Amino acid sequence: MARREGGSSRPDEFELIDRLFAPLAARMRGACELKDDVAYLPLAGGLVRRDEELVLKTDALIAGVHFLIEDPPALVARKLLRVNLSDLAAKGARPLVYTLAIMLPKETDFAWLKRFAAGLAADQKEFGILLAGGDTDSTPGPLSLSLTAIGAIPAKRRLLRAGARPGDGVFVSGTIGDGALGLKILRGELGGLTTKQRAFLVERYRLPRPRLELGARLRDFATAAMDISDGLVGDLQHVCVASRLGAVIEAERVPLSNAGRAAVKQDGKLIQSILGGGDDYELLFTAPVEKEPALKEVGRKLGVPVTRIGSLSSNPQMRPKVIVLNAKGREIKLRQAGYRHF
Amino acid sequence: MARREGGSSRPDEFELIDRLFAPLAARMRGACELKDDVAYLPLAGGLVRRDEELVLKTDALIAGVHFLIEDPPALVARKLLRVNLSDLAAKGARPLVYTLAIMLPKETDFAWLKRFAAGLAADQKEFGILLAGGDTDSTPGPLSLSLTAIGAIPAKRRLLRAGARPGDGVFVSGTIGDGALGLKILRGELGGLTTKQRAFLVERYRLPRPRLELGARLRDFATAAMDISDGLVGDLQHVCVASRLGAVIEAERVPLSNAGRAAVKQDGKLIQSILGGGDDYELLFTAPVEKEPALKEVGRKLGVPVTRIGSLSSNPQMRPKVIVLNAKGREIKLRQAGYRHF
Repeated sequence: MARREGGSSRPDEFELIDRLFAPLAARMRGACELKDDVAYLPLAGGLVRRDEELVLKTDALIAGVHFLIEDPPALVARKLLRVNLSDLAAKGARPLVYTLAIMLPKETDFAWLKRFAAGLAADQKEFGILLAGGDTDSTPGPLSLSLTAIGAIPAKRRLLRAGARPGDGVFVSGTIGDGALGLKILRGELGGLTTKQRAFLVERYRLPRPRLELGARLRDFATAAMDISDGLVGDLQHVCVASRLGAVIEAERVPLSNAGRAAVKQDGKLIQSILGGGDDYELLFTAPVEKEPALKEVGRKLGVPVTRIGSLSSNPQMRPKVIVLNAKGREIKLRQAGYRHF
Repeated sequence: MARREGGSSRPDEFELIDRLFAPLAARMRGACELKDDVAYLPLAGGLVRRDEELVLKTDALIAGVHFLIEDPPALVARKLLRVNLSDLAAKGARPLVYTLAIMLPKETDFAWLKRFAAGLAADQKEFGILLAGGDTDSTPGPLSLSLTAIGAIPAKRRLLRAGARPGDGVFVSGTIGDGALGLKILRGELGGLTTKQRAFLVERYRLPRPRLELGARLRDFATAAMDISDGLVGDLQHVCVASRLGAVIEAERVPLSNAGRAAVKQDGKLIQSILGGGDDYELLFTAPVEKEPALKEVGRKLGVPVTRIGSLSSNPQMRPKVIVLNAKGREIKLRQAGYRHF
């Protein structure tokens, strides 16, 4: 459909699709080997079960905004898939298929795309999702990628932001703040730390781990759930707004990685980035406090720590605020409660 | 998720979504008022019927490539929806929902977005499709829009590119070449013609008409179908490759609008643009020739002319070629058989 022509150091659109993307769709029969105009998703006898409903998520990554064009292409591909898979995880969904719109500047060459496709292939295998279709276009702008992921959940088992109840505990998976610290390192804004710690944090920023197994188990426990993409406090605020409640979290309870702890020890102000920064892609959820032991046990079995960091309140003065207390019970004021998309 | 901040003459992301996009999702219950991380598409008792399968289509439009930033925002929105709906039409699908990724440069203001959303609203009403979810991000590049449309067809009633049989007729809906001529007018490459004719052709370029009703009826007649987005001959070639056949079409039979006919009368070489240029978004399909009267009758009832322009051959020397003959039975050589996306 595009109007731009020739002059590029890569094969044409059809060859690119044949060589790099069709193999990613080979096992998805409804994708028609990417040789038709659409993809088909059968609703019986195949990927989807009769008692399920679908979960849809669209998220885009743009070079210079969400990643650097110098980043390894396979990592860009995997992050693109994973930020969408992370939302499916937060809803307890089983990944099925995805479509992909790729907007390519002229200078993006075949080698870059080949490594990008290899990253998609690796994560398709890891997370059991298949390419169904998409679109490639030339852009005079930066490389831009938009992905729509489709998953399935048992019907009537939605995990919304809006289900939290007064007195529920606030829980998170994994460790918090690693993504924000990793970004600081890449930007040259965070010195110190050992090489290993720095590598760990950068890896956490670049390669989120969608908590799909934990998410699927949360359907039996959680009252509300989302993934932490814009920052712990900002995202908890979304839950509070949707559930018309307030929240109190204790900073001391927020689980940090060894590297995260080392960073805060070095500079106490980094707690701001840990609580307010984005890119954790851990799960944030609420559940009755008496479920804590069972939830911790589920986390142990899956190798993903589950930690209760606070609780919800229906106190009218607090709604829909999120209050963060330090070890002395004093409020920590945050400069920014969550990243804004613009 | 984005990393860009402030400084723009428009409300923040959340307000934009609330004010402009949530109303577009109001009637789609699974969209959760765009207040959750995902959208839900129930597969029973609602939009989708048990005996259906889904059809997925992703297509992107980029300012400066597929449209001009000076174009009326409502038309950009409608074209974005319609190019995707046109693919659903070609597969005989009933539109259900769509997700939308919007990548916004800083200079795109609220007024532009408001008119863009109004365009979406108008076409949602016209074509019975609802916004389910999406993503908004800042971009340092041109305004870029990626849409994923989801439709439904009765299970096992796929209209592929690959089903054409030797001896089948080649049919098109509507008139061919108007989009390509409209683009030439916008580019200042086509003079002459009356003001009315020029306006007609530009409108045809800017506002495709997805042939959804005709497409749904084609399931009873057609052996293969697609929409004409890259050009009649190039797209017919896709059908030939997928069906392992060759095609002969007679240029004289290709249906032209009055304006299209006037343009060719003025400059015979424009037949090249008409046969090879894109943006028609009419349906191209194959069917047994004896179905021609019934197909014409269906077209008459729907107010969309259906014309047979040629036929398919299993002659091994022709596969997968498309040969265009003029009134004297001589081959017309095309400079370019279809636009390439890059």
